[in-house]
Amino acid sequence: MSDDQLKTLRRSDFGYILQYRTRWSDNDQYSHINNSIYYHMFDSVVNTYLIEACGQKPQESPSIGLVVSSWCQFFAPLSFPDILDLCLRVTKLGRSDFPAAVGGYTHVFVDNQSRRSVPMSPQIRSGLEALSVSVSGKL
Amino acid sequence: MSDDQLKTLRRSDFGYILQYRTRWSDNDQYSHINNSIYYHMFDSVVNTYLIEACGQKPQESPSIGLVVSSWCQFFAPLSFPDILDLCLRVTKLGRSDFPAAVGGYTHVFVDNQSRRSVPMSPQIRSGLEALSVSVSGKL
Amino acid sequence: MSDDQLKTLRRSDFGYILQYRTRWSDNDQYSHINNSIYYHMFDSVVNTYLIEACGQKPQESPSIGLVVSSWCQFFAPLSFPDILDLCLRVTKLGRSDFPAAVGGYTHVFVDNQSRRSVPMSPQIRSGLEALSVSVSGKL
Amino acid sequence: MSDDQLKTLRRSDFGYILQYRTRWSDNDQYSHINNSIYYHMFDSVVNTYLIEACGQKPQESPSIGLVVSSWCQFFAPLSFPDILDLCLRVTKLGRSDFPAAVGGYTHVFVDNQSRRSVPMSPQIRSGLEALSVSVSGKL
Repeated sequence: MSDDQLKTLRRSDFGYILQYRTRWSDNDQYSHINNSIYYHMFDSVVNTYLIEACGQKPQESPSIGLVVSSWCQFFAPLSFPDILDLCLRVTKLGRSDFPAAVGGYTHVFVDNQSRRSVPMSPQIRSGLEALSVSVSGKL
Repeated sequence: MSDDQLKTLRRSDFGYILQYRTRWSDNDQYSHINNSIYYHMFDSVVNTYLIEACGQKPQESPSIGLVVSSWCQFFAPLSFPDILDLCLRVTKLGRSDFPAAVGGYTHVFVDNQSRRSVPMSPQIRSGLEALSVSVSGKL
Repeated sequence: MSDDQLKTLRRSDFGYILQYRTRWSDNDQYSHINNSIYYHMFDSVVNTYLIEACGQKPQESPSIGLVVSSWCQFFAPLSFPDILDLCLRVTKLGRSDFPAAVGGYTHVFVDNQSRRSVPMSPQIRSGLEALSVSVSGKL
Repeated sequence: MSDDQLKTLRRSDFGYILQYRTRWSDNDQYSHINNSIYYHMFDSVVNTYLIEACGQKPQESPSIGLVVSSWCQFFAPLSFPDILDLCLRVTKLGRSDFPAAVGGYTHVFVDNQSRRSVPMSPQIRSGLEALSVSVSGKL
């Protein structure tokens, strides 16, 4: 999807939404949410979904998801104490994205001990398939 | 208040409560919310209250509140993706505190430009008085 | 640059290097530096360079740089208390990148008050030109 | 130690010093290091010392240190890109403190699995004794 297409995304395009409060320290000295914080948010909605909908247990599950690449396109500033809607979906091959800012994560699943790449567990695969949408191009 | 008394605090002892989601990165490698994060939470509930109930505008208000001391007593571990109730009250002279962990902030109000100490504005004083409780001793 | 090319980048490919200590809380519950923290690092080396080499004053300068997009490709895990070399360069049109993880920022410069896009100041342009390298393709 | 006494502390009063760079996002919208960040710094110098001087391995050691209380007294503002000297010492019963801001941590050592209180290992005790100073009163 092009940047212009990314901007057209709406809540209804996503299968999982969490409301998240911003924190005082999220604002940097330009009085808006610091760009790095968006990635903390992405991490949080992805992992909440993995834990609550896919049975992931970060300390015990045999495989864990590691981020191998991430990106974010920023469209409009946000500022504490804004309350955010974090919207999650999965595009082919496990990518996820967000409106207002739209970002992406490429997760690989690895063995919890060896950290070597392993197939997704059936529970995680079916949890992620529930959020899966078909898109052409980048996202 | 002694540590034993602090442990007895309940939601009903507080005048302002916000629900806050934890974030993936709040957990440190011991898989619980890192102690520093509690202070980010304290900051957030205090400043949300100042902004929403006391008319504080961090960029424009003639006076701003600076933290001159803070403390926290930790009673029980928390872990992502727990959802927290942040409970705020004001004890004599502007101190605030929290249950589960209980912490305190001493805020001074200073001029937004010169950063010299100034009296609280009437709007802030009345907003804080609305949360004020009378306690003896430490908190 | 392709991912394979990004991996070949070395310290000598960059014009500005800062040593940065990691922090205890940078490690998430997988005991490695959380992916979001890399963006805090990118922010820090970029802004240190702008302040120290380009005369940028975040509170006073007429224009400020805002991040409009960012990305990171992760190649190897890092962990507290590792000490990191943050390496900065500028590719055509103001993009910057890093080895080990390699990331990118697209900065636009905007008016400090109105937040509308403005040309870079001559001092910032010449500071950034000092880090400029010519690359073909993505980075 | 009273607040006035805390202010008189100097680098030479401490046995372990690390230089730490601040980060762009450490500054909040008041353009100074956010109060919560000091606790991230405390955590970092304490744990670096435990790892490098006391043989602590956070993932493997049979006991780990958990923070049961913390506090900080703020004396002067700091701001990115300041480089900080984090100074550590141990007062009787394992408390540690810092100048400029001075803060304290009460660590308990617990079993890595059960999280029940355990005695310090001899290696940790001797590492901490190397930083131990005798003070009367609060710190």
